[in-house]
Amino acid sequence: MKKKVILASFGLMLGLGYGAAAFAQQKPDVLVKQRQSAMTLIGKYWGPIAGMPSGKAPYNAERVATNAAYLEVLSKMPWDGFVDSTKDIQSRALPAVFTDTAKFKEGADRMQAAIAALAKVSKGGDEAAVKAAIADAGKTCAGCHENFRAK
Amino acid sequence: MKKKVILASFGLMLGLGYGAAAFAQQKPDVLVKQRQSAMTLIGKYWGPIAGMPSGKAPYNAERVATNAAYLEVLSKMPWDGFVDSTKDIQSRALPAVFTDTAKFKEGADRMQAAIAALAKVSKGGDEAAVKAAIADAGKTCAGCHENFRAK
Repeated sequence: MKKKVILASFGLMLGLGYGAAAFAQQKPDVLVKQRQSAMTLIGKYWGPIAGMPSGKAPYNAERVATNAAYLEVLSKMPWDGFVDSTKDIQSRALPAVFTDTAKFKEGADRMQAAIAALAKVSKGGDEAAVKAAIADAGKTCAGCHENFRAK
Repeated sequence: MKKKVILASFGLMLGLGYGAAAFAQQKPDVLVKQRQSAMTLIGKYWGPIAGMPSGKAPYNAERVATNAAYLEVLSKMPWDGFVDSTKDIQSRALPAVFTDTAKFKEGADRMQAAIAALAKVSKGGDEAAVKAAIADAGKTCAGCHENFRAK
C-alpha cells in the first residue's frame, strides 16, 4: 500500500516535471507547506506588477524585470508538491488537482511559459509588450485557480 | 507615529538591500508569512544537498546545480520581511533581529555570498570543490540561526 502510494506519487512527479529534489519520502504536510510557500512568494512578487497593465499601479520597468526574474524561478516550485499523498491534507487545492491531472499539468505548464515569456520581454523594455505579457501571465493564474483552487 | 514606523522600516529595508517590491505598506503578518515562506523553500532545496559533504546523502552533481541555482534566487527573498513593523508578530525571529540589525545584515549577506559561490562552483563539476562550498554555505545558515532564531 505504502509502496503503491509512493509509486503513484513518483509517476505524478514525473508528469509534472520532477527534477530538483527527492520528495517521494517527504511527509505530505511538509509538501503542502512547501507548495503553499511557493504560491505565497509568487503572490509577493506578482502583486506589485499585477496592476500595471490596467494602470492601477504605476509602470516600473526595473521592478517588472526583477520580479519577473524571481517569478520565473518560483513558477517551477509549487508543482511537485501536488502529489497524491497530499490529497487528504486540508488546503485550498480542490479534488480535481488529483483527478484531472492532465488539465492541471496543462495549466501549470501554461503559467510557467507565460512567466518565462514575461521575464524575457521585461528585459527588453518595450512598455506595451511588457504590459501585454503581464496581462497574459495573469490570465494563466486566474484560469487555473478557477478550476483547481477553493474560493 | 505611523509615519515614524514606516520611515524606520524603510531605513531598515534600505540597509537590507531593498529592491524587488514595495513593502512599506504591506501588513506585518503578510511580511512574516512571506519571509517564512522563503525560509521554507530554502529548506526544501537545501535539505537534499546538505548531507552530501559528509556522505550522508549520495553526491549528485546535477541536483546540486539545480538546487543551488534555485537557492541563489531564494536567498535574496527573506530579508525585506524582517522589518520593524513585524517585531511584535509571533515567530521564531529573536528580538536581536530588530536590535542588532548590523550583525543580522552581515549574516544575511554572508549567506547570500556563500550560496552564490556554491551556485557558481556547482556548474563546474569539481566534486571536492562543490562539497566544500556546500559545507561553507551550511555554516552561514547555522551561524545566523544560532543568534537570531529561537530553538
